[in-house]
Amino acid sequence: MKNFVGREIPDELLVNGKEVFQGINYRDGQYFKKASPKVRIYEKPVESKVVGSIREAILKCNMRDGMTVSFHHHFRDGDYVVNMVMKEIVDLGLKDITIAASSLGSAHDPVAEFIKMGIVTGIQTSGIRGKVGEAVSKGYLKTPAIIRSHGGRVRAIEEGDVHIDVAFIGAPTSDEYGNARGKGGKNDCGVLSYSMVDAKYADKVVIITDTLVPFPNFPPSIEAIDVDYVVVVDEIGDASKIASKATRFTNDPRDLFMAEICAKVIAATPYFKDGFSFQTGAGGPSLAVSRFLEPLMQKWGIKMRWAIGGITAPIVELMEKGSVDMIIDAQDFDMRAVESVNTNPNHYEISTSQYANPANKGAFVNKLDFVVLAALEVDTDFNVNVITGSDGILRGAPGGHPDAAAGAKCCIVVTPLIRGRIASICERVVTVTTPGQCIDVVVTDHGIAVNPLRKDIMAWLDDAGMPHVSINELKEKAYSIVRKPEKLQWEDKVVAIIEARDGTILDVVRQIKPYSFE
Amino acid sequence: MKNFVGREIPDELLVNGKEVFQGINYRDGQYFKKASPKVRIYEKPVESKVVGSIREAILKCNMRDGMTVSFHHHFRDGDYVVNMVMKEIVDLGLKDITIAASSLGSAHDPVAEFIKMGIVTGIQTSGIRGKVGEAVSKGYLKTPAIIRSHGGRVRAIEEGDVHIDVAFIGAPTSDEYGNARGKGGKNDCGVLSYSMVDAKYADKVVIITDTLVPFPNFPPSIEAIDVDYVVVVDEIGDASKIASKATRFTNDPRDLFMAEICAKVIAATPYFKDGFSFQTGAGGPSLAVSRFLEPLMQKWGIKMRWAIGGITAPIVELMEKGSVDMIIDAQDFDMRAVESVNTNPNHYEISTSQYANPANKGAFVNKLDFVVLAALEVDTDFNVNVITGSDGILRGAPGGHPDAAAGAKCCIVVTPLIRGRIASICERVVTVTTPGQCIDVVVTDHGIAVNPLRKDIMAWLDDAGMPHVSINELKEKAYSIVRKPEKLQWEDKVVAIIEARDGTILDVVRQIKPYSFE
Repeated sequence: MKNFVGREIPDELLVNGKEVFQGINYRDGQYFKKASPKVRIYEKPVESKVVGSIREAILKCNMRDGMTVSFHHHFRDGDYVVNMVMKEIVDLGLKDITIAASSLGSAHDPVAEFIKMGIVTGIQTSGIRGKVGEAVSKGYLKTPAIIRSHGGRVRAIEEGDVHIDVAFIGAPTSDEYGNARGKGGKNDCGVLSYSMVDAKYADKVVIITDTLVPFPNFPPSIEAIDVDYVVVVDEIGDASKIASKATRFTNDPRDLFMAEICAKVIAATPYFKDGFSFQTGAGGPSLAVSRFLEPLMQKWGIKMRWAIGGITAPIVELMEKGSVDMIIDAQDFDMRAVESVNTNPNHYEISTSQYANPANKGAFVNKLDFVVLAALEVDTDFNVNVITGSDGILRGAPGGHPDAAAGAKCCIVVTPLIRGRIASICERVVTVTTPGQCIDVVVTDHGIAVNPLRKDIMAWLDDAGMPHVSINELKEKAYSIVRKPEKLQWEDKVVAIIEARDGTILDVVRQIKPYSFE
Repeated sequence: MKNFVGREIPDELLVNGKEVFQGINYRDGQYFKKASPKVRIYEKPVESKVVGSIREAILKCNMRDGMTVSFHHHFRDGDYVVNMVMKEIVDLGLKDITIAASSLGSAHDPVAEFIKMGIVTGIQTSGIRGKVGEAVSKGYLKTPAIIRSHGGRVRAIEEGDVHIDVAFIGAPTSDEYGNARGKGGKNDCGVLSYSMVDAKYADKVVIITDTLVPFPNFPPSIEAIDVDYVVVVDEIGDASKIASKATRFTNDPRDLFMAEICAKVIAATPYFKDGFSFQTGAGGPSLAVSRFLEPLMQKWGIKMRWAIGGITAPIVELMEKGSVDMIIDAQDFDMRAVESVNTNPNHYEISTSQYANPANKGAFVNKLDFVVLAALEVDTDFNVNVITGSDGILRGAPGGHPDAAAGAKCCIVVTPLIRGRIASICERVVTVTTPGQCIDVVVTDHGIAVNPLRKDIMAWLDDAGMPHVSINELKEKAYSIVRKPEKLQWEDKVVAIIEARDGTILDVVRQIKPYSFE
């Protein structure tokens, strides 16, 4: 069945009430009964929940074949926890395991092997990169991977679409009872936002830490009342690897050029006023926008009330200079952000439900004025792809992209018109990860396009004397420089399902066919 | 059927799996699936959840006959919210309403009228005083009131024994989205611990505030993601009435004498060492214990790691002097405590589940070394009554008494041997609210008794040269001064059920019969 963004969704996926994507806000006003975990009553006081090893914790959790385990990715490329736990699970001979992670990246390459061995048979994640992405794209995973936004992941857990049997939560510090924090310790990741829903909805919760601290470790990100066992290991990760290229400050002139345009678009709207709110995504140009917003804010004599999202140094510095009242933090993208959430009382940790869940009573994204997001591709319906590369391989992460785009009053996507020899503005994205309905403005190094749904923004840009063209013109421009690409070639097998944040099916990714000339 | 503490529980109450009390830790290791609320999806961004009046909020919540509404009692005798909401419910002609409050007191006398009118037909609470207690004792409530400890209330909600349709949460500050705090505003109650479970498990959540603050009101005690509507009223309560006689510092020589003995008992145990934890309950002598602990701590060169419970000035001052590392706060009993939780970074708010819930994975009470509690009566089985007066009328509150008693390594109950003309140490308490199994030491102004279950404590007191007698001796002493009281006279009708913290039935209270000479 064809869905709202024109994607053909195989009928065999539309079972158990699963629907195709019907456009945004389709489920607004619907009611659902929240899922809930099974809990063991710990009525009798025990002094400590510390057990001797990850293996012992797995055994005490009565892990069986077919179970789902969960992980967070606050350590990004520096995470050690997934591999440590999965090794024990494999060594114990368990099989048919589903990994429900907030994201999987190159740190988790060993998992690709477990997929090929048929031990890991399900993947649910908000990001998939490295060898895991390749293994899934090549059809090794037994069931289609399910890719959700950060908010969509919380919704899926709270609505019971995915039930976590055991959550393994790497925590920079924990006490013997499981009060765990993203702060302090040998390897500090700042916040544990992604794990909060896991702790509340998993049947069993295991804290894995490298720094045991005196009880009570307060205030906790993960509360001891939800924790079964605590394991102390040598190292849970390498915090120095949290920052990646995508989260570093750019000096590329093209990036800076586009960032400045984004700032001007923002300033052209009436939402740019004292007390506005703002999120930047990862990626050079979007991160650089705050650099150009600062002089505009000073000129207008206005302040930002709150900044949100994956937090990086530029926003931290804006707060320290007094231009931003508060930072609302769901993930730290560099050590400057980690340091800030540890020390600045105006820098607050939130759960991913508070950040982006579409199925609670109003996440932060619903109050967002501006978001500036990156894209691998944007098509002429304004649909965005941030998951499949130009080779069709899974190598990206929707993350909070669809959530912030849906919530923000003004969603700007910034991308160079051409990347390498590939057009970023195209006729039809390989995979839809954020529906075009949510994208208001596309900023490129060759011009701006405004979504025809946003005539108001067009008028504001006109008033500001900022030229803009149709998205079609941008696409034509791109295709005039680099050729329209050959179509990718796919097998029939669906290897990944892209869920919209409300749980409907936005797109599917099929097994990639080795390239051959037609 | 007779239960573990020898109380006859009517068979008609033992339906739907309800059991009689089987002794403490009976349910340890059991599994249950947590309850969960029905949630409306607020996917489409809205700017504000503020509605014009309490009545409008009730109507928007689609309140119907037969529903259960909930309230917290952080304002104690100064609460205005229950009466404001109940007036609207009654004016709207709704009926068959159950009130699930964390406690009801003299501030809620108007509710007694709604009970007599047959509009309020159910009461579930952790405390019941004033005219509501009298109305229930006299048999006006259609169904038996259910009395639970603070931890038992959380358990009951989480296990689904009570389902809250609409939670009305009075909040000193809220933003337009419902991020609510116990801090700031015109009437500041410090924390909102009791309400946290209501916000997470009620189908609808209404914040009632007198101080609307800019979004986001952070960090929130109640998260906007759980809130449907916000109502702004003139005054939610009178914070000056939070402190009551029971929470004020005593200068009564008898109270001070007993407090000093309690401190000496504490110091005689091996739990009195650097890093120990401590809770005092309400009531003059128990509150005064910290005054006598301080010189002992200084003498021994030790510090308290954490103090917990209803917080009052003496503990706050101990922390300020450096004798206590942290205060873990589930309720503020005076304005000194409110001020401290607002300003001292080592003073932390927790949920009542974190404090005392017996059915999570380990509440704070499970890690407690000492608690000193008050009692209306203690019997020779060490059972405690804190709910019915000597006239048999409901006029008390189990509160956290059964929770802290069950968790603490050393639970001391302090009471004068005689109160007025009534023996406090008796053969058989009118009502069992905390089972004797949990009570380790009874301190009176006429001697100490140690529970025979705690031979270790007896030996420690012997080593410290502290004399102690049997509880029977204390009772005989009391009866030699004031006569053994006449038996109270009861009707057959059960007017209240006293639930143990695990949900089993500990005791029942029957309708009081007007006194007549036999």
